[in-house]
Amino acid sequence: MKPTLAKGTRDFSPLESARRQYIFDAIRKVFALHGYQPLETPAMENLQTLTGKYGDEGDRLIFKILNSGDFLKPLREQQTLPEDASKVVSLLSEKALRYDLTVPFARFVAMNRDKIAFPFKRYQIQPVWRADRPQRGRYREFYQCDADVVGSSSLLYETELIGIYDQVFVQLGLDVNIHINNRKILAGIAEKSGIQEQFTAFTVAIDKLDKIGWEGVQNELQAQLINAEAAELLKSLLEKTGSAEEILTHAKSILSDNALAMQGISEMEQVFHHIKLSQPDGLKAKLLPDFTLARGLNYYTGTILEVKMQNFNMGSIGGGGRYDDLTGIFGFPNVPGVGISFGADRIYDVLLELNKFPEHLESACKVLFVYFDAESPAYCLPVMAKLRAQGISCELYPEQAKLQKQFTYADRKGIAFVAIAGANERMEGKFSVKNMKTGEQNFFDARDLMDYCGK
Amino acid sequence: MKPTLAKGTRDFSPLESARRQYIFDAIRKVFALHGYQPLETPAMENLQTLTGKYGDEGDRLIFKILNSGDFLKPLREQQTLPEDASKVVSLLSEKALRYDLTVPFARFVAMNRDKIAFPFKRYQIQPVWRADRPQRGRYREFYQCDADVVGSSSLLYETELIGIYDQVFVQLGLDVNIHINNRKILAGIAEKSGIQEQFTAFTVAIDKLDKIGWEGVQNELQAQLINAEAAELLKSLLEKTGSAEEILTHAKSILSDNALAMQGISEMEQVFHHIKLSQPDGLKAKLLPDFTLARGLNYYTGTILEVKMQNFNMGSIGGGGRYDDLTGIFGFPNVPGVGISFGADRIYDVLLELNKFPEHLESACKVLFVYFDAESPAYCLPVMAKLRAQGISCELYPEQAKLQKQFTYADRKGIAFVAIAGANERMEGKFSVKNMKTGEQNFFDARDLMDYCGK
Repeated sequence: MKPTLAKGTRDFSPLESARRQYIFDAIRKVFALHGYQPLETPAMENLQTLTGKYGDEGDRLIFKILNSGDFLKPLREQQTLPEDASKVVSLLSEKALRYDLTVPFARFVAMNRDKIAFPFKRYQIQPVWRADRPQRGRYREFYQCDADVVGSSSLLYETELIGIYDQVFVQLGLDVNIHINNRKILAGIAEKSGIQEQFTAFTVAIDKLDKIGWEGVQNELQAQLINAEAAELLKSLLEKTGSAEEILTHAKSILSDNALAMQGISEMEQVFHHIKLSQPDGLKAKLLPDFTLARGLNYYTGTILEVKMQNFNMGSIGGGGRYDDLTGIFGFPNVPGVGISFGADRIYDVLLELNKFPEHLESACKVLFVYFDAESPAYCLPVMAKLRAQGISCELYPEQAKLQKQFTYADRKGIAFVAIAGANERMEGKFSVKNMKTGEQNFFDARDLMDYCGK
Repeated sequence: MKPTLAKGTRDFSPLESARRQYIFDAIRKVFALHGYQPLETPAMENLQTLTGKYGDEGDRLIFKILNSGDFLKPLREQQTLPEDASKVVSLLSEKALRYDLTVPFARFVAMNRDKIAFPFKRYQIQPVWRADRPQRGRYREFYQCDADVVGSSSLLYETELIGIYDQVFVQLGLDVNIHINNRKILAGIAEKSGIQEQFTAFTVAIDKLDKIGWEGVQNELQAQLINAEAAELLKSLLEKTGSAEEILTHAKSILSDNALAMQGISEMEQVFHHIKLSQPDGLKAKLLPDFTLARGLNYYTGTILEVKMQNFNMGSIGGGGRYDDLTGIFGFPNVPGVGISFGADRIYDVLLELNKFPEHLESACKVLFVYFDAESPAYCLPVMAKLRAQGISCELYPEQAKLQKQFTYADRKGIAFVAIAGANERMEGKFSVKNMKTGEQNFFDARDLMDYCGK
């Protein structure tokens, strides 16, 4: 039997795992610095918990788990099998795989509302599964990486989450733009122009600006019968260039008679103000007002965020926003929150392409001790114990073999140093140590070996 | 809708997640020190990859994933639905959830044999799923935590893995016994006594010694028609007390005429010898020859290991052994290996009961800055940036609220210090800092606050 991977899934090799771990560790560290706590939920949820939360298409893409035991029993009781298989899903399956981290988080909050200290700041880094058609860059299993705070409407959390984005990408060595919008501004324009009914079409058109340019957006708005006033307001907003302050001042001047839009602008101003306070030296990232930003607008009710690389052609590598009601669907209404997520797969691709992963990740081990002859274990093992006690990873080749073979092993594992002790070295209590990168050779006793390799 | 967890699954709360992370980090660190590399495989495997690898009972306990799309089509083509549902599993499902880490590891090795540098030392810490009946301490989703090295028969790896066990449990502060056996010794006894046919019954009986005592084992052996010679040899082995050396010398004296048993004893002696070399100060754990140890004997072909707590009533918290053929089933024969695993759930329970988790895990954040009045963000946020730059986690309460409420929040999150700045503090450029554990109060400027809380 020739084994294969299930379609749309991946193994992560040692190097890939180490690199992914590096990304997650950086993110986790910054989350923790800001008082966010880890949460883990099970891969399997009751199907009921997930169904109806992601739209019809989402319901189809949820992986269902076949019931155990005599799962056919309910089908045998049917007269005929229906043409539409989805009608009997709930007869064959009562559990399903996590589709995102938000719904399980909401379930957790609703179930544990009495135990949680609100505002509840949690992060969650776990895989999710979707029965999407696999294609380049789209997998059926992938990690999501979310931080949310629920139980507060304070705008200070927007500031905190933007600070988290900034710090993570500084740590990873990536220059990013953080785009910020506020749903209330777009909703205010719609209200002011009397096109509330067409609000979704309005935002869908705006969202395409990147791809089709302003002319295209305008055609689209006309095609959707969106009136000229909305288009003009939007155009004026989008054409204004300058600092965030100038852009917001201009926005206020043209939307001053709409309370909703003014509230959205004021919220954004507050976020910019807090950012200035909390980052005395400024963000490393550029924080940009972006009135075209509309990701999942139906869900978000206030601030909307999206992170993109500077000078690198790649979709968003992070996004989030504020919402009003996380847990109403689970019988615990009026829990507002704000959250962000990191696109780990894309961040991985960017780091790889820009060669920004630290080199040490390529090294499975620091020192290989060569198995020279039968005396090698007795000579090397005690020294290895000392190295490990100093936190220096090392291993002994497990049996006598040609030096060439042992060096090839070191090379393929990215091992940094190879230590050899033949009869001569042993007589003097030393090791010949080869730096695998530079080719440099040294003659060290155990102590110097440790100092040299521990650097 | 009142949400519930799927039967047999668990959420891990922030504190539980932090504690589990602590265990995994300790293990991961020791694996890495010994040159083991991380591997991650997908949760879903092709059903074919898993079926037939775990026995009939195992096949039943594998969670199958319902096919997407019109999954009923193959059933409609059946004349009638069979009485035995398992007959149509493969018509409804082509994917399944990982049941253990060994089979996916074997699949990975077989698929990547040309890319891997052998001996291949990998560790893997991932959840697995089993449709077992849930009960106290048995879950349908649980983590396995394995390290294996494949592609070598060198006994040095037994030594290395025992060293890993030792170091991990030292790190975690647990006193353990590591039991060691070798299948060849038991097989040699069986051979010598002519009971090869009854070998499984023989080992099953031995395995019960803990529970039913020697008398019980003897009755069981008689009931299984196992001859007196085997029982006598076994009894003599088991009754011998003393050091490992004495026990092995005795074993040699009574099994000297059986080559297989002598090979098993010699292997065990070598392991003890290498351990002495590699641990000049001795293991912290006790390494005990234990001829009753027979875990999964059909799989293991040489060394067998099991870890148990000293002075604490709990089943094994780790186990492993040597095997001859990891990947033959996937068309890549003759890949021997040796591996160990850690029982993370039980280790968690032990650490909790013995109060051995570090206290800092209970603290979600180091410093809470109180939101005293409208001036608080401007006064606190810049100082918080400095703390975070020093690696000190902190947060600002997100809005003006009664002090009592803010302190309760700090208390429930296990926050160590609360920093307050009212008008007086601000006038002097200071903070009143309360140590939440001792109740101690101090009056610090930002620099002293940082020194104090950073300790």
